[in-house]
Amino acid sequence: MSEIRQDPTTEEWVIMARERAKRPTDFVRGQAEAESPVFLPSCPFCLGNEAMTPPEVLGYRDGGSQGWRVRAFANRFPALTPEGGAVRRREEGFFAAMDGVGFHEVIVETPSHNRPPALMRDDEVAAVLMAYKERYNALSRLAFVKLVIIFKNHGPSAGTSLEHPHSQLVATPIVPGYVRRRHQVASRYHNRTSRCLYSDLADHELRMGKRVVMQTEKFVAFHPFASHWPFETWIVPRVQQACFGNASAEELEDLAKVLRASLFKLRRGLNNPDFNYVIDTAPVGEETSGYYLWHVRIVPRLMEVAGFEIGSGIHINTALPEDTAQFMRELKID
Amino acid sequence: MSEIRQDPTTEEWVIMARERAKRPTDFVRGQAEAESPVFLPSCPFCLGNEAMTPPEVLGYRDGGSQGWRVRAFANRFPALTPEGGAVRRREEGFFAAMDGVGFHEVIVETPSHNRPPALMRDDEVAAVLMAYKERYNALSRLAFVKLVIIFKNHGPSAGTSLEHPHSQLVATPIVPGYVRRRHQVASRYHNRTSRCLYSDLADHELRMGKRVVMQTEKFVAFHPFASHWPFETWIVPRVQQACFGNASAEELEDLAKVLRASLFKLRRGLNNPDFNYVIDTAPVGEETSGYYLWHVRIVPRLMEVAGFEIGSGIHINTALPEDTAQFMRELKID
Repeated sequence: MSEIRQDPTTEEWVIMARERAKRPTDFVRGQAEAESPVFLPSCPFCLGNEAMTPPEVLGYRDGGSQGWRVRAFANRFPALTPEGGAVRRREEGFFAAMDGVGFHEVIVETPSHNRPPALMRDDEVAAVLMAYKERYNALSRLAFVKLVIIFKNHGPSAGTSLEHPHSQLVATPIVPGYVRRRHQVASRYHNRTSRCLYSDLADHELRMGKRVVMQTEKFVAFHPFASHWPFETWIVPRVQQACFGNASAEELEDLAKVLRASLFKLRRGLNNPDFNYVIDTAPVGEETSGYYLWHVRIVPRLMEVAGFEIGSGIHINTALPEDTAQFMRELKID
Repeated sequence: MSEIRQDPTTEEWVIMARERAKRPTDFVRGQAEAESPVFLPSCPFCLGNEAMTPPEVLGYRDGGSQGWRVRAFANRFPALTPEGGAVRRREEGFFAAMDGVGFHEVIVETPSHNRPPALMRDDEVAAVLMAYKERYNALSRLAFVKLVIIFKNHGPSAGTSLEHPHSQLVATPIVPGYVRRRHQVASRYHNRTSRCLYSDLADHELRMGKRVVMQTEKFVAFHPFASHWPFETWIVPRVQQACFGNASAEELEDLAKVLRASLFKLRRGLNNPDFNYVIDTAPVGEETSGYYLWHVRIVPRLMEVAGFEIGSGIHINTALPEDTAQFMRELKID
């Protein structure tokens, strides 16, 4: 028999399909890809090709050298742009619309074309996270910005065509319903209990242990009870803090270890699957709320969403998080 | 500049990304697939292989012949099964869960392995729709069923591995939040205006014309103002009716023409893209509500969802519905 599980943070349901259940090893990709070069002359993100990108808005360099460790600049094909007004208007007398105002930036994570975060050193990942924070804080203070989404697409089925390791930030002039609902759920929980839902969730997972992949002083990584996707991984701070922009340097250094290890285990255990990760954080103006807790959500792209999901919003997950977390926990990092 | 558009039925926002905009012809698939045979000995859905499926729950036959036109039976790998109780329980003292109770059926649309609905006659598609209605009405009357989702997956990136044309029904013991929210939006609109949001939307699209692909006496097919996906197509009845199970035979015959033509145009115009379609209908118990209108939603799988969508719930659509609707409108059906 299947089990239907409710995600406590969204109140959405997920079907854990035992009749279709797969073992963790069934998700290992068959095909190994060709090794990429460290430098590609045509890649705009490679070291030496800086002139191919828009002007730098952030650059981390060691001791004034020509080289750099992390760079950020505007996306050349932006989803949103700074021109226009953040004002809703009626369209055709029936619809609501607004100008696509906002910001869309790229953060290049490394000068090396073939060095994804799974293969970086912890301090390199920490520098990427520092760059996220710096650009988050720069963008979230701009006039009409209501939410900043930080995300990474790895591999073609995760929506990227550029192999060179990079992340993106999009600053939107609206708080989408999907984000608002998560905050409403957490706010109701807080009204009822005076506690943070996400902190209670992290504490519960630490107590149970069976869905935990790893833990450090400041973070816990686990596969959620109602994972929407096989091997979905959440990395949650152990101290309540609504906004990623307020994370301390020590926290980011600790997160770097957990994120790097989680991505390494995915790459090693499943043969480099495509994945996305996002940083779920509070909307602008709610940075100090006591009910929310920013966190990282990693979504490996091991399964296609089909008509049932499109019609119902209910995901069918063919892997139990208890099984996949055990598989990941037992994988060695070297 | 991009435009951010609000879907009036969900109140979610979609970014229409002009900087990344593509022409309708940019979505044409490059690769033509090999012709499939009319019969495949290993295919459980092929004529003559009936013993390979679970017992038939529906079969349309002409004059008692051995052959059949449409068949339905339980899915051999069901997401939900009839055993168990439809009762919420606490899990681990923290989560909500329930048994995976429900029904999951397959409707085989044709005895021919290589005859997708785009290539059927209208009366063949009408028979499939009649089968949907018959099984919808059978399942929606069972004790704990709260919602019946009817959907079709066409092609691997739409989540199917079986090529033989078939659809599925899943009867769930819950109304998912995604469905409930659409009904809340429509109910609020009805409270305010005494009118049906979907009927007003269909009337508006008919008046505007520019997003309409085709219209008949009883239906209008259009690409929504805030399409989440390129070439997303809605087929909406022109008379208010909340529940698909109450559609008349005449309506289903008319829908068959519009559905067949829409799928034919997709296949012809874009070189047989993968797609899903779903029938959005009222939850059980709300069949006679005046605020909702059942409809068909076709989602071609021409774009991957990426980290931004996963983090924000906002889709970025790289094709304007005004452009794609014109492209589809001008395609000939023969």
